[in-house]
Amino acid sequence: MSGADVDSMLFEGERRIDAIAPADRGLAYGDGLFETMRAFRGELHWWDRHWARLRGGARVLGIELPTQAIVRDSLCALLDGRDGVCKLLVTRGSGARGYAPSAGPAFWSLSRHDAPEPREHVQLRWCSTRLAIQPALAGIKHCNRLEQVLARAEWTPGETADEGLMLDIDGAVVSAVAGNVFLLDRDRWLTPAIDRCGVRGVCRGWAAQQLDAYETRITPATLMGADAVFVCNAVRGILEVERLGDRSWTPHPQVAGLRQRLAADHPAFAAPPEMP
Amino acid sequence: MSGADVDSMLFEGERRIDAIAPADRGLAYGDGLFETMRAFRGELHWWDRHWARLRGGARVLGIELPTQAIVRDSLCALLDGRDGVCKLLVTRGSGARGYAPSAGPAFWSLSRHDAPEPREHVQLRWCSTRLAIQPALAGIKHCNRLEQVLARAEWTPGETADEGLMLDIDGAVVSAVAGNVFLLDRDRWLTPAIDRCGVRGVCRGWAAQQLDAYETRITPATLMGADAVFVCNAVRGILEVERLGDRSWTPHPQVAGLRQRLAADHPAFAAPPEMP
Repeated sequence: MSGADVDSMLFEGERRIDAIAPADRGLAYGDGLFETMRAFRGELHWWDRHWARLRGGARVLGIELPTQAIVRDSLCALLDGRDGVCKLLVTRGSGARGYAPSAGPAFWSLSRHDAPEPREHVQLRWCSTRLAIQPALAGIKHCNRLEQVLARAEWTPGETADEGLMLDIDGAVVSAVAGNVFLLDRDRWLTPAIDRCGVRGVCRGWAAQQLDAYETRITPATLMGADAVFVCNAVRGILEVERLGDRSWTPHPQVAGLRQRLAADHPAFAAPPEMP
Repeated sequence: MSGADVDSMLFEGERRIDAIAPADRGLAYGDGLFETMRAFRGELHWWDRHWARLRGGARVLGIELPTQAIVRDSLCALLDGRDGVCKLLVTRGSGARGYAPSAGPAFWSLSRHDAPEPREHVQLRWCSTRLAIQPALAGIKHCNRLEQVLARAEWTPGETADEGLMLDIDGAVVSAVAGNVFLLDRDRWLTPAIDRCGVRGVCRGWAAQQLDAYETRITPATLMGADAVFVCNAVRGILEVERLGDRSWTPHPQVAGLRQRLAADHPAFAAPPEMP
């Protein structure tokens, strides 16, 4: 068995399986949900947060999740004491042709990936791909992600921006392509409300609590006028923005302080930062 | 091998494969396209129309399609002279974790399904799930279909409507859940413009040509005041609407005439209608 095979597992309901059904509804319609989680020495410190979001998404889509303990035990077996990034994908399972949801057991898969190099700062760019306004799907981490794929395809060869910011169709700032965004606006932390589009990130939830952040509509002008900006997700943690277009920011002590609190709360983020 | 196995084939690039990669981007993000086509005695009479739409979608998503002749020959082999419905699914293939599009060969699958019972009339309902406005993805038959899944999940047990009509977020009529809609408004055929959301159906394209239909924004009131309404798709053909909410319509000779032209153009739709 190759290394790639060892690092993923497939299930239907509570039964381990060998192959993905050609009629899987995740493949057909993106009819599923996913979580990407940071592991440290075989442990998932934010498991409860990830499972809670997954459960919220499953409620919206009407997907019956497998038993939590089986998923977690399987993840621990896959990790086998290692660090890294775990991805959990859950789809509605396979069904007949047509959009009507089927009632069979969910398909789910687990995979382990190497953790990205730790870093503290990023350069952003604006994406021209907009996020559609769809309150029925806002917040959950579902598998309809073509907007993010199109946004990530905007990078030209050699372009050095690490991440991109996305606006909704109405021009409000929503998030990074794969993370949420926070900004310091006259001593108050703001983050875009995720009620019309975007993903309610697990790290966003943690940071919003820590900073007592205010959720609101944010214009590009407010963001460009902020005293500090960071993007965050549960894989990379807190990434302070040092440049966006022709605006640059110097490191802000409040972001450094938040990063320290994150390192205390989740040991995967306590790793030393990159060397200069 | 079971009948279900015989009726599907999997490919990567131009090579037949046995299993779907766990890291397939169709499964992860709905990063793919599909076509459902009506076959008659092993032939796909609207193949050129389906392939043209698929090619348009592939251009939007930046997916490199397999060679047309190989796909068509494989479909003919799968059909082996039979009637039915063929589904062609093409995804970007498998890739590393993350939204950035990978450059590997596309994954594609073929499956054959039994054709639905022929019928001429349907009862509709309004769906409360709205279609988000996303011009970047409008028209193409991509695999981000959670809105259609949520709409189809609205049916309560025992509810007899055959299809549902969907509005966009702004309240304009867009389409049926799995088909397009046409209406006769004072001697002129109208169909919703598919420039902000919805799928540019293959049967829609055929019918719009036949009827010299005008593409525009259509309100629910205009639809309810129409002299005739039909929904259509490439699997079921022309389905005249006989009821929607408290409005009913009697069969209209122009719809019967269009159905006759369809039967002449595509022999799969020349089958006798259901018995009363």
